Amino acid sequence: MKILVDAFGGDNAPEEIVNASLLALFKHKDLKITLVGKADVIQDCLVGKKYDQARLDMIDAREVIGCDEPPVEAIRTKKDSSIVRAVETLKEKPDEYCAFVSAGSTGALLSATILKLGRIRGVNRPVLAPLLPTIKGTPVMLVDSGANMDARASNLVQFAMLAHVYMHKVLGIEKPRVALLNVGVEEAKGNELTKEVYPLLKALPLNFVGNMEARDFLSGEYDIVVADGFSGNVLLKSTEGACKILMQEIKQAIMGSFMSKIGGLFIKGSIKELKQKFDYESFGGSVLLGAKGVVVKAHGSTKAKGFLAAIEQAMAIGQSNINEVIEKEFEKMASIEHLQEKAEATQQIQESLKDKQNQEG
Amino acid sequence: MKILVDAFGGDNAPEEIVNASLLALFKHKDLKITLVGKADVIQDCLVGKKYDQARLDMIDAREVIGCDEPPVEAIRTKKDSSIVRAVETLKEKPDEYCAFVSAGSTGALLSATILKLGRIRGVNRPVLAPLLPTIKGTPVMLVDSGANMDARASNLVQFAMLAHVYMHKVLGIEKPRVALLNVGVEEAKGNELTKEVYPLLKALPLNFVGNMEARDFLSGEYDIVVADGFSGNVLLKSTEGACKILMQEIKQAIMGSFMSKIGGLFIKGSIKELKQKFDYESFGGSVLLGAKGVVVKAHGSTKAKGFLAAIEQAMAIGQSNINEVIEKEFEKMASIEHLQEKAEATQQIQESLKDKQNQEG
Repeated sequence: MKILVDAFGGDNAPEEIVNASLLALFKHKDLKITLVGKADVIQDCLVGKKYDQARLDMIDAREVIGCDEPPVEAIRTKKDSSIVRAVETLKEKPDEYCAFVSAGSTGALLSATILKLGRIRGVNRPVLAPLLPTIKGTPVMLVDSGANMDARASNLVQFAMLAHVYMHKVLGIEKPRVALLNVGVEEAKGNELTKEVYPLLKALPLNFVGNMEARDFLSGEYDIVVADGFSGNVLLKSTEGACKILMQEIKQAIMGSFMSKIGGLFIKGSIKELKQKFDYESFGGSVLLGAKGVVVKAHGSTKAKGFLAAIEQAMAIGQSNINEVIEKEFEKMASIEHLQEKAEATQQIQESLKDKQNQEG
Repeated sequence: MKILVDAFGGDNAPEEIVNASLLALFKHKDLKITLVGKADVIQDCLVGKKYDQARLDMIDAREVIGCDEPPVEAIRTKKDSSIVRAVETLKEKPDEYCAFVSAGSTGALLSATILKLGRIRGVNRPVLAPLLPTIKGTPVMLVDSGANMDARASNLVQFAMLAHVYMHKVLGIEKPRVALLNVGVEEAKGNELTKEVYPLLKALPLNFVGNMEARDFLSGEYDIVVADGFSGNVLLKSTEGACKILMQEIKQAIMGSFMSKIGGLFIKGSIKELKQKFDYESFGGSVLLGAKGVVVKAHGSTKAKGFLAAIEQAMAIGQSNINEVIEKEFEKMASIEHLQEKAEATQQIQESLKDKQNQEG
């Protein structure tokens, strides 16, 4: 199994990315890694480190795409960037490489994937799908977390199906519980989009458990949460933001007085455990589901440990035949839709004939 | 100053509502309260309690609207409910009553307000505006938090203006900082709605500071956050949910071992202070801005202390002349729009005349 790694993506590149890659090679003897980026700088990072040279090589790419660059333009102009080179290699050598992992610009990764790698047949829009920790210890997948701003009902239905295949095939969950992000649990609640999506999700062969209010996102009661990219992004960022701010405030509260500092020493272990439980990198990064090839986006601020988790996630996806399953499922779907459309058309013709006969008769 | 109080709204009605009302009367000697609901039950709650009888009276209303009832239907059929009776009284006696406070069904309150009380001239849709605590200790107002699901750009602009008047007139903030909820800080980011709203907010005489990402909601860097009702609701509930879950987990972590229990005793005080800082009821409830009359919605699970804060918020709004200011601002706005439309029409006519002349010449 061979994976492409963006050595020049994220706040802590290339050092932490290179370290994560060496860790991955050490842990997984069947793994090979190709680091993409400025080869001389990567070489410097490798000096004095022990690793199996037969399982690590490089593709030289001299440009770096920054996080603030307009994605589409960056992809077009920076042809020698680590992201463009890696995505092109993944496309050209699908038998050699099974995945690409990057902590670089989400927008650039999305653009490169959609423009260069393309979509699986039948998928209208790939979706950015992160896995989040819940209080029950199980992960929840959010589709979409920000790739598709003005999504339509048919898009959300596809997001649900893509996530279903992932949770079933990669994480082995028998019947992943699918929920729709909404303002209330009742079917009639919501905006025009959710009201349109609800009956569609209900009709699909999914374990659709109904609407979910944003406050229950971390409850562990759901495996998949479906949303448009805008409100999904709001859900993700407000949850992360609130958790971060509260942890900081607790730290400050403990450091605030002599007494509480002493108390802090006693509870240090428990708080550390809690932090580990809610470590959003523990399950890896975000997958670009629906793309013709496996692309995993690690957190931009990730260090070696988090990036290692993203590499391992890419390995798990690579080992599953998820994209083949997605293609088959969407083909089945398309043929059902085709049959339905045909049936509906036939019915309409028959009805209009009847009307005509009635009018004439 | 006289206020109508829904004695039969919320999880802890009527006991906690009656207690909050007595507390308010004790604290504010210029306050009068009319409790609306089943008079005999309210009377029972008052037995053995000391209060100034001259400042407390009742309106008997025999029906109660539950939180799960379809709002519009409930308002139509339950004419003798505390919400309907109170809103009708507020409408009929604007010189006697300055506000209505309820912890009852948000939907029913919204429907009753819109259908019976009506909107201030020029306001297209009233907005549900809660005040949230931030890490800086100052409150942030969210407009909309869930009243308007499929809002248009012009609605969001009005939400911003309504909240601006509130923060300026009621809380005395000189230039309230207005932000637009979005997926990134750059102007070009977002969905169709936010892209349309951004330049409009920029053009208005507001202190518009740009886009805000959901993770910065509690940062204290903004006084007003503008959003459509759906994503505003997601922002509000995910923030509340994450804070609640994390506080529970911390409590459990501390109770988890003997050592951490001891530590917990030392930091108890600091954690209590932190809880008070993030007490979402400390600033009162949600105001229905833009309605022809002051309606404050307290949290459904509120107890006496929280409901007291909502009563005091209603008093502060009552003391300000906020609705008069809103009416004047929206009149000004309408006349500017009218002039603009006129100017645009004149320009169009002139241009078409020119085109004609050019064609002929």
